[in-house]
Amino acid sequence: MHSPAAKVSGYVVLMIVQIIFLVLFWLFVRYEKTALPLAIDAEDAGSANEHVSKYPQFQDIQVMIFIGFGFLMTFLRKYGYSATGFTLFMAALVVQWAVLMKGFLHMEGGKISLSLENIIDADIAAAVPLISMGALLGRTTPIQLLCMSVFEVALFAANEYLALHVFSICDCGGSITVHAFGAYFGLAVALMLRPASDQNETGKLEGASYTSDIFAMIGTTFLWVYWPSFNSVLADGAGGERAILNTFLSLAAATVTTFVVSALVSHENKLDMVHVQNSTLAGGVAVGTVCNLLLGAHGAVLIGIIAGTVSVLGYRYLTPWMTANLRLHDTCGVHNLHGMPALISAIASAIYASMATVGEYQSELQDIFPAMVGTNGTETKIMGGLGRNATSQAGYQLFGIAVTLLIAIGGGILTGAVLKYTNFRNLKKDEHHQDEHYWEVPAAENKEEYELEKVDELLL
Amino acid sequence: MHSPAAKVSGYVVLMIVQIIFLVLFWLFVRYEKTALPLAIDAEDAGSANEHVSKYPQFQDIQVMIFIGFGFLMTFLRKYGYSATGFTLFMAALVVQWAVLMKGFLHMEGGKISLSLENIIDADIAAAVPLISMGALLGRTTPIQLLCMSVFEVALFAANEYLALHVFSICDCGGSITVHAFGAYFGLAVALMLRPASDQNETGKLEGASYTSDIFAMIGTTFLWVYWPSFNSVLADGAGGERAILNTFLSLAAATVTTFVVSALVSHENKLDMVHVQNSTLAGGVAVGTVCNLLLGAHGAVLIGIIAGTVSVLGYRYLTPWMTANLRLHDTCGVHNLHGMPALISAIASAIYASMATVGEYQSELQDIFPAMVGTNGTETKIMGGLGRNATSQAGYQLFGIAVTLLIAIGGGILTGAVLKYTNFRNLKKDEHHQDEHYWEVPAAENKEEYELEKVDELLL
Amino acid sequence: MHSPAAKVSGYVVLMIVQIIFLVLFWLFVRYEKTALPLAIDAEDAGSANEHVSKYPQFQDIQVMIFIGFGFLMTFLRKYGYSATGFTLFMAALVVQWAVLMKGFLHMEGGKISLSLENIIDADIAAAVPLISMGALLGRTTPIQLLCMSVFEVALFAANEYLALHVFSICDCGGSITVHAFGAYFGLAVALMLRPASDQNETGKLEGASYTSDIFAMIGTTFLWVYWPSFNSVLADGAGGERAILNTFLSLAAATVTTFVVSALVSHENKLDMVHVQNSTLAGGVAVGTVCNLLLGAHGAVLIGIIAGTVSVLGYRYLTPWMTANLRLHDTCGVHNLHGMPALISAIASAIYASMATVGEYQSELQDIFPAMVGTNGTETKIMGGLGRNATSQAGYQLFGIAVTLLIAIGGGILTGAVLKYTNFRNLKKDEHHQDEHYWEVPAAENKEEYELEKVDELLL
Repeated sequence: MHSPAAKVSGYVVLMIVQIIFLVLFWLFVRYEKTALPLAIDAEDAGSANEHVSKYPQFQDIQVMIFIGFGFLMTFLRKYGYSATGFTLFMAALVVQWAVLMKGFLHMEGGKISLSLENIIDADIAAAVPLISMGALLGRTTPIQLLCMSVFEVALFAANEYLALHVFSICDCGGSITVHAFGAYFGLAVALMLRPASDQNETGKLEGASYTSDIFAMIGTTFLWVYWPSFNSVLADGAGGERAILNTFLSLAAATVTTFVVSALVSHENKLDMVHVQNSTLAGGVAVGTVCNLLLGAHGAVLIGIIAGTVSVLGYRYLTPWMTANLRLHDTCGVHNLHGMPALISAIASAIYASMATVGEYQSELQDIFPAMVGTNGTETKIMGGLGRNATSQAGYQLFGIAVTLLIAIGGGILTGAVLKYTNFRNLKKDEHHQDEHYWEVPAAENKEEYELEKVDELLL
Repeated sequence: MHSPAAKVSGYVVLMIVQIIFLVLFWLFVRYEKTALPLAIDAEDAGSANEHVSKYPQFQDIQVMIFIGFGFLMTFLRKYGYSATGFTLFMAALVVQWAVLMKGFLHMEGGKISLSLENIIDADIAAAVPLISMGALLGRTTPIQLLCMSVFEVALFAANEYLALHVFSICDCGGSITVHAFGAYFGLAVALMLRPASDQNETGKLEGASYTSDIFAMIGTTFLWVYWPSFNSVLADGAGGERAILNTFLSLAAATVTTFVVSALVSHENKLDMVHVQNSTLAGGVAVGTVCNLLLGAHGAVLIGIIAGTVSVLGYRYLTPWMTANLRLHDTCGVHNLHGMPALISAIASAIYASMATVGEYQSELQDIFPAMVGTNGTETKIMGGLGRNATSQAGYQLFGIAVTLLIAIGGGILTGAVLKYTNFRNLKKDEHHQDEHYWEVPAAENKEEYELEKVDELLL
Repeated sequence: MHSPAAKVSGYVVLMIVQIIFLVLFWLFVRYEKTALPLAIDAEDAGSANEHVSKYPQFQDIQVMIFIGFGFLMTFLRKYGYSATGFTLFMAALVVQWAVLMKGFLHMEGGKISLSLENIIDADIAAAVPLISMGALLGRTTPIQLLCMSVFEVALFAANEYLALHVFSICDCGGSITVHAFGAYFGLAVALMLRPASDQNETGKLEGASYTSDIFAMIGTTFLWVYWPSFNSVLADGAGGERAILNTFLSLAAATVTTFVVSALVSHENKLDMVHVQNSTLAGGVAVGTVCNLLLGAHGAVLIGIIAGTVSVLGYRYLTPWMTANLRLHDTCGVHNLHGMPALISAIASAIYASMATVGEYQSELQDIFPAMVGTNGTETKIMGGLGRNATSQAGYQLFGIAVTLLIAIGGGILTGAVLKYTNFRNLKKDEHHQDEHYWEVPAAENKEEYELEKVDELLL
């Protein structure tokens, strides 16, 4: 069953990838000017300090990526090593790759300028394959996951460039470019790797234990707490403050709604930890694209209520339907936490964009909707926009999510096909959701379980 | 035993509350000017950035509320879902309510101005019912808890307004207005909900497991680490730095003292996790009201030593006495962590206020003791105070805590009576401290336990 | 076996130590000027705010010390109370002692000036005995640990003063003065306390359980995430930004390398949690001393790759060899996480120092290599240096690590001798790695285990 040779070759490939990264860093990456020593006769040392003013928010995002995603996925009974470990492995690989890939799209003089901004971007990029991992959790080998993430991040960087710099859509918290992309890419891969019809039942280890559910709450809570940092890190000034306020209120409203709807639709009106762990966060995703807009507190709360409701109903009704009918096993329910809430966010962005006026957004219009400034639509002296009117911008927002879905799903199908039909080893049904195939697991625990099984037999 | 109809109606009421919040946000809340776009011809965009300089401290407090309180209460063996989940539920409801309630007390032109400050205040307000929850942990339904929190926060906002703006007491870290209020309100509710005399023994699940105790240490440690942010967030400049330093030193001293006293008074001189989880934090509470004053490092350390000692002795002797004689079951011992240390803080504030001079506090006197500046007591040009002398200010500090206790205990008795004698369902003794009455709990775990029980029988 | 009297006297001594600290704070410590109120007619209140600009990084380091170290050491099956509890106890004692000890070396007018800087330094100092504790985990009484830490921190402060202020070495992230010192001091103590030859086998509780391994990942991940704050907190401006970037990249590269090498060298090519929990962090240690230098991204990545490789190989081959041949039981493998990576960092610092030029480092040369500025080696007007050339500075870097090793190992041997041969109680073999000798442990758990043991017998 085990094929050590296949494992070894996979890990060797990953080491080679790491060494290629080293060479690319050496060839292409240089510190940005703010991170270099000033000339001896220069006066001011303040620029770098100003540059790192986003550092606390960067650290919040670090916690979200490594603790948040890692522990959110520990909910499976026997997959906690993989959840926390592979998150660390994948994120460590991806952040390097994202610095390079995103850097290649913005080179100056043939070099990538390295500053705090690049590693903030890299952390955000790491969220993308981690979201996809949620759709596949426990059904792939680590080698498959890691190779997927390398391909996915390259595609993500291209799509993000297209959406933000070519289509000029607004997406402050990344719901379109990060959440929708990651979720639908992952779901497409999961569809390609779907089991045969006679293997479609839920795996025997595809569930939580009492302890693993509490570990998962560590992930949920840190994601909840730091989500305003994720959504606001790329905004400045008043827009940044609105991003914080709107995200906070949307999360709060989504959380209350999640508990209520969970109790109303669940068996015996009992709360379901899956909903609490995930749908409470849907408010952060659904407000993402529009978090810096003039939603008002009520706008943010309304988005949160809608997101919480849709997400819980998705877990309760849609996911089981997809599993039964499409054989699409979305282990963490990323469609309900990231996918649908991101669609809500995209639709909200079209609605709010269609109502945006220069009178309301004043000097921020050029930051938020750069394509709306210019010759018509505004009579200001602000330059450089494409002169889109509000309706046109709204159309571009919808176009942006459509193209993102197309690229994500197309890329996911292609990647899934590569993972399935080339030389990669695929896990067998009975290897799913188990750490012990890829990790040394303490013997004592196995012994205890073994004991219980024996007792079982004895008692029958 | 279960009454799904009662559950459903409770959750429906909470959904209606959320929708009422939505309407109130729509009617009354507007972004503050700093969070709005600048006019196109305005020059400076720096004001909002300055405004969000407290953002890192806000995030620390977020961690304290959601991770800190949530995990601190996971120490019960079978109540971890409720501890983390209901904390999230309650805090999400309360932060919205607190923005509104505290906003109503400070409206301008009939509108509430929304900025980062409001959500910092809201997070602090969320601590209040979470403290009360600790006194009731495992003995109420979630519906009771949530309804209590709505009423409590309204009363808290009123009492805080009274203490700070009418009595002009100093309470930088909120030990009087937050900790004393939350603790004694919760204890009064617990007293009202006390069991009949023949039901007074400790519940069979009212204890920790090895794993649940370690989960609780996550809560303890994050509260410990971020407490300086909680105490200093509302102070500025030098006073803010002192708040950090004093809180840090008081916590450190309380921690060393807790370990020593715990070992000295416990059975076989073994350390007790309950003390370590809770009394180590008493230093943060006890220094709260005075944390920005000129205590000196030794003052802070002394307060920490006293707080650690009192708190451990409270757990060891007072709590069992209250349980036995008053049938007051303070599940988390909030009286020892929040109640008594807050009284120490209030007394300390009277002592330090009685010694405050304008020569010592200079320009900060108007921030810290605004009622002391004015016509007499100082001969400076600072305006607007009530001209209290130091002794008078000390008296007001004691008056502030007395009124707070009165309102908290009175409000708690009233709330407890409502929870007990109206239509709310009350938990039965054998439903206490168990997640499974309100949560779907993994079957596998139950199976294991079932096994063990069977083995038990077999072996007898 | 238990000697309550010995325990009591140990704790009483610690209480006396705490009271001595109180007296020393009273006699010697005063708030720094920035933390004191301004005179009423002073204009500017900005200085303290500026002063606390490092506060977010301080809080990150707090999390590293209390959560990071504490939970990293929870990996042992039955030692989680001690890991988290004794970390809290030790750190709370040490931070007070470090404020005093480091303060005595920098007194002004017979007084220690207390500001945020002092408690940042104190937190860094707390890392030192916590590293040593890792080498001894489960083999000492808490009294031994605490007494060791008091002595160790005094010696650490002296050695650090020597290295930084007398030898003028660069050590931005403290790999030489903190990590090497803590590791080799701890290893020397462990060597002194080594078991008799016939007691050298691994303890029966010296291993992880499935749950305890996941708890340990909380520690690992927070250390990983916040390590850039630890390395950069003492750097400013551009050097600070480079410290962040280099540490981040080195950690990422070390992590990828750790996973690959772990799989390649482990049994059946399965990943080993010990490597993942520890060696992933080796990149942060190995880049520490040089993190603010002009390494370039490739330099940081290369250091990370080397550190990850050396660390995993150390765990796989060197630690078992040391246990078997030297009877040196390094419970957490601090030699592999802190010791060897710190040596790598020292060597790297010599290499980079040997290449440092004023043309490259410009105005930062005086901050980073203060002894290199002056009469020769530079022709600038910067004053105060010793005029060392680059080769000479490189030599001093190596001299610095050599002296550090000498003092750490000498001090450790001495301390170990005191712990072994004086009145301290030493744990017996069968008391190792067990909470229950010093903590009240829930009875229920023991019952379950007892059950399993009985079942065991029954089934045989």
